[in-house]
Amino acid sequence: MAASAAPGEFRSGPLVLRDAALFTDLYELTMAAAFFREGMREPATFSLFARRLPATRAFVVAAGLEDALEYARAFRFTPDALAWLRSLGRFEPAFLEYLGALRFTGEIRAVAEGTVVFPDEPLLEVTAPLIEAQLLETALLNICHLQSVLASKAARVVVAAQGRSVAEFGLRRSHGTDAGLKAARCAWMAGFDSTSDVLAGRTWGMPVSGTMAHSFVTSFGDELEAFRSYARAFPDAATLLIDSYDTIAGARKAALVAKELAAAGRSLAGVRLDSGDLPALSGQVRRILDQAGFPQVRIVVSGGLDEHDIEAFLAAGAPIDVFGVGTRYNVSADAPSLDLVYKLVAHGDRDVLKLSEGKETWVGRKAIYRLRDDEGKHAGDILALAEESPPERAGGSLLAPVMRGGELLRVHPPLADVRRHCLSEIAALPEGLRRLRGHTEYPLRISAALRVRQEAAVARVDSG
Amino acid sequence: MAASAAPGEFRSGPLVLRDAALFTDLYELTMAAAFFREGMREPATFSLFARRLPATRAFVVAAGLEDALEYARAFRFTPDALAWLRSLGRFEPAFLEYLGALRFTGEIRAVAEGTVVFPDEPLLEVTAPLIEAQLLETALLNICHLQSVLASKAARVVVAAQGRSVAEFGLRRSHGTDAGLKAARCAWMAGFDSTSDVLAGRTWGMPVSGTMAHSFVTSFGDELEAFRSYARAFPDAATLLIDSYDTIAGARKAALVAKELAAAGRSLAGVRLDSGDLPALSGQVRRILDQAGFPQVRIVVSGGLDEHDIEAFLAAGAPIDVFGVGTRYNVSADAPSLDLVYKLVAHGDRDVLKLSEGKETWVGRKAIYRLRDDEGKHAGDILALAEESPPERAGGSLLAPVMRGGELLRVHPPLADVRRHCLSEIAALPEGLRRLRGHTEYPLRISAALRVRQEAAVARVDSG
Repeated sequence: MAASAAPGEFRSGPLVLRDAALFTDLYELTMAAAFFREGMREPATFSLFARRLPATRAFVVAAGLEDALEYARAFRFTPDALAWLRSLGRFEPAFLEYLGALRFTGEIRAVAEGTVVFPDEPLLEVTAPLIEAQLLETALLNICHLQSVLASKAARVVVAAQGRSVAEFGLRRSHGTDAGLKAARCAWMAGFDSTSDVLAGRTWGMPVSGTMAHSFVTSFGDELEAFRSYARAFPDAATLLIDSYDTIAGARKAALVAKELAAAGRSLAGVRLDSGDLPALSGQVRRILDQAGFPQVRIVVSGGLDEHDIEAFLAAGAPIDVFGVGTRYNVSADAPSLDLVYKLVAHGDRDVLKLSEGKETWVGRKAIYRLRDDEGKHAGDILALAEESPPERAGGSLLAPVMRGGELLRVHPPLADVRRHCLSEIAALPEGLRRLRGHTEYPLRISAALRVRQEAAVARVDSG
Repeated sequence: MAASAAPGEFRSGPLVLRDAALFTDLYELTMAAAFFREGMREPATFSLFARRLPATRAFVVAAGLEDALEYARAFRFTPDALAWLRSLGRFEPAFLEYLGALRFTGEIRAVAEGTVVFPDEPLLEVTAPLIEAQLLETALLNICHLQSVLASKAARVVVAAQGRSVAEFGLRRSHGTDAGLKAARCAWMAGFDSTSDVLAGRTWGMPVSGTMAHSFVTSFGDELEAFRSYARAFPDAATLLIDSYDTIAGARKAALVAKELAAAGRSLAGVRLDSGDLPALSGQVRRILDQAGFPQVRIVVSGGLDEHDIEAFLAAGAPIDVFGVGTRYNVSADAPSLDLVYKLVAHGDRDVLKLSEGKETWVGRKAIYRLRDDEGKHAGDILALAEESPPERAGGSLLAPVMRGGELLRVHPPLADVRRHCLSEIAALPEGLRRLRGHTEYPLRISAALRVRQEAAVARVDSG
């Protein structure tokens, strides 16, 4: 697993992207060519942040930062990539030669992965010579967007489950290999208990879990024989899928297998329901198992569930031990994208903004200060300029340097630590922000100094 | 680019997934262990098909088949993978030894990539010893699901554009690296004209295109200076983004740059509008350009567009030449998942089905016959058993063998050929199925023989 990366390769766990510098929009390269031609080499700062959020998102869990840094570190154009760019006939030889020697030499300041952020608050800021910072845009967005979409959705599922166990098993409907692996990673980061994804389990050391498929039952034809066979193979770890034909009959057969296991000193782990009226059926199945003397056999439910189903099932008092969550988490079905953008906010010694309708941006290199109430909960943030001194009662800025001169300033924290941080972040959310629907707004204040700088920049544009 | 794959690697263009056999749900492995323990080695057939479709999907464009075959071909457990599985303490040594020698030795029959299919019609069927066929489930679904979701969405965008040019540029919000590359591939397959994704362009030989970002304009501060600089760098290929501050003022500056280029014997390629009332603004911008003598300068619009916007803009007579489509295509925002499943339909000499509520499956190895009307349009399909003889007037089955004994039966067709096939498939759709909303149902008939076999299998379950 530890083979080192070849030039130009971006590695993320078991996934390797070759010639990753070409994983970009063409316009990043054409803009870079124009900057090069004009001799524009001044440092620039870009902010990566969410503009507005969908109605069902009260916050964003910032994720993908480890990969973003690895991408910046691996960034280079290989001779193959340059030869192909040359073949397009659009780029001057001097520019291609320049690209061949280009490395990312800049600074990245970022919030810690797993931190909760709000609209207009940067997940990260890149300060580097204009071309370097510009050329990272597409990949940094792709990386941070995917993982922040997933971690933000996962946090909602975990909040809804109120401490019940949640297992991620939507690998088959994640958008490809990268998204599948990251869905497991982000689920665990935000508080899921396990994933079905074996490769993700190996990569990030998270617990793997699974039950059985309908095909297992139907391949035997006889349901009881299928259950017995699985119990023989995994005598203390079998979770039986009981809805292939009739859930109640399936539950009775599961109870019988539990008895047979008990007679041999072993125990059935659980049963899974994947269709029908799950709250009602789970109650009936619970009674069947309890009456047979197996209150410890766990009930797992699944089947297109999302956080709203989980909330409703628990509100109905359904005796469910584990929620298996797949597709609707894995594609973040209600909000498959977030309006995450990467905007130029400073260039040379000049503040920069755009004024397109509904798309205004805050100028300058920034800091985020977070206030806490007496219980340690998030009480409001202040978006400020990086050079301001911190307001009273606020700790340091959430945006901290993580890369300088193109070099990492620290090793990446283990995912278990990121998970702990993320869980404390979610726990510190005010109640109104934990609502699945109709959440309250989080108070974000703009510092007086930032406001002054913003107004000056707007005035320059208006008179320009 | 041509380095050969190491054992256990699944390659898809520039993306390499190591230990790809572990890219699976844990239960595939635990079920396989139980099958192994029971000595179940009979051949089995699994069908990969869509159950029901979301309201806005009248059809599925089958895609991902090339990658699916490559996955099956590359399938093997490396010593590293086996060592990790051993460390879980759940699997017997004999089973792990068996996995170490396992290769896919079966048959895959599939529809040609780019073919339009309907609910219950298999995109592919796998016939192989039970364990081999079972272990491919998760990956084959992940691969075919992503690309079929994308190609199906792309087809709707292309239908809506009625022959106007469409450019894909949503790489930044695709779900990760794999999805980003595949979004470009599937867009082109279904009739988009270009992609912004440089790496996808190199990988699949498709046209790449791009304009400029707001940051380009704002980095100059002065909009006209930004336009002039870009025109200097790309004197015949510049598309200027004119909405950073005020679209109408931006259009006048673009017209000025077009004049300056014309004086030097060059020409401005286009302008892009990314915000505001696009149909109205495109009309005003068109008039400004026309009055300045530049009717050939193309108008590109973008900004969260989907097929419904495109349909509405064209219905309003907006003079738009190119639609730039991003996020809402790239994540298939209205239907980010399809209910694509992989179901056991035969095991040994026995038909297999499940009866879970709303999830019944058709038994047996199947064929799909497609009828055509006098104009060559799709007039209805027949789902039949593979061993039936084709109905009159129908050609051969759409499901044809593509892999046998684990070996490819032919080289993959070039993507340009897949695209041609896909475009002819979309063109052959009845008008009612091309509607973006309120589409008609496509007639699918079940053959008499399949119906008889299905009823016999249901009767066996009911009496079992």
